[in-house]
Amino acid sequence: MKEQYPSELLQNAVDAISSLPGVGNRSALRLALHLLAQPKDHVHHFTNAINRLVDEVRYCNECMMISDSDHCSICSDRTRDHRTVCVVATVRDVMSIEATGQYRGVYHVLGGIISPINGIGPSDLTIRQLVERMKALSAGEGAKPEVILALSGDVEGETTSFYIYRQLAGLDVQVSTLARGLGFGDDLEYADSLTLGRSIINRQTFKP
Amino acid sequence: MKEQYPSELLQNAVDAISSLPGVGNRSALRLALHLLAQPKDHVHHFTNAINRLVDEVRYCNECMMISDSDHCSICSDRTRDHRTVCVVATVRDVMSIEATGQYRGVYHVLGGIISPINGIGPSDLTIRQLVERMKALSAGEGAKPEVILALSGDVEGETTSFYIYRQLAGLDVQVSTLARGLGFGDDLEYADSLTLGRSIINRQTFKP
Repeated sequence: MKEQYPSELLQNAVDAISSLPGVGNRSALRLALHLLAQPKDHVHHFTNAINRLVDEVRYCNECMMISDSDHCSICSDRTRDHRTVCVVATVRDVMSIEATGQYRGVYHVLGGIISPINGIGPSDLTIRQLVERMKALSAGEGAKPEVILALSGDVEGETTSFYIYRQLAGLDVQVSTLARGLGFGDDLEYADSLTLGRSIINRQTFKP
Repeated sequence: MKEQYPSELLQNAVDAISSLPGVGNRSALRLALHLLAQPKDHVHHFTNAINRLVDEVRYCNECMMISDSDHCSICSDRTRDHRTVCVVATVRDVMSIEATGQYRGVYHVLGGIISPINGIGPSDLTIRQLVERMKALSAGEGAKPEVILALSGDVEGETTSFYIYRQLAGLDVQVSTLARGLGFGDDLEYADSLTLGRSIINRQTFKP
């Protein structure tokens, strides 16, 4: 395949672009030729934005969220409830929950979930920092602090939730998890049977 | 939407990545976070490969193909037929024809096709260089030179082919175009009627 490319520079660029997840060789070639057709300034702006992201990104000291400073805008917001900490796997999860506009507490970004198959153990995540944080919160004044485990519902997510739950045992901390059940507006006919079954078992008081 | 991003650096990177064709905001965020999770060296290698491509790329003086030097490997190959020139729109077309392994002539890359709707006129393409090249070839020794117009079969491709044909009028040059008809292995039942009709009109002598 190597001799197909008319230029080593092109080959290298295609190889680099196709290392991105979900980008095959054909798309990579299309993107490389697209970049080549752009003004140089535009391409340098593109590569600079990526370089600056990886070189200059910082993480909030409090919640480990991507941030431009040592304290993210959420942790710096004094109007939010700093005694309710929502534990999520990634930055994207924070963005999803923030987009709902319904949560006024703060976050803790784990940086992944426990996944032995991918070689990710508890020490690769920010679980220790979470425990320290909750220890400090439960020693401080105010209402009983709460941890909301907002991890995925698969085996790895459940494992991580359980691990964190065990680590928090002994602290005066309320631990909760996301409500699971049928989505609002979901049709019973098309619901998967696990979710439907659980939503019957975990039925809630009708509040009209 | 702006306040959704926890970091301006992230926002800038997502904006840059989503400027690529076919990449939306969600994919761009996924790619940005993927790059952020890679070793820095890997990301710098990625951006360097792209920067070097746009900064250092050269074009063959002969055929205008992307190349690492002033003469591409095809034009430098003395075993190829340099009096048969296949005219294509883009670098990708050269790669497609080379991949067939059935063509032993050389190429001429136009850099696009005439497309008034996209503001591309004949002077934006390398048509003048093609005419000069064919003029030189027809003045030189050897067999009658041939131009193969290997452009797309749509209106813009046909317009470009016709324009080039007119420009070459007066030169002692054979002008041909790609055979069009049913693909090898195509089923009559599923062929589009234009192609099927043309392939009857342009029927060829049966050579068993």
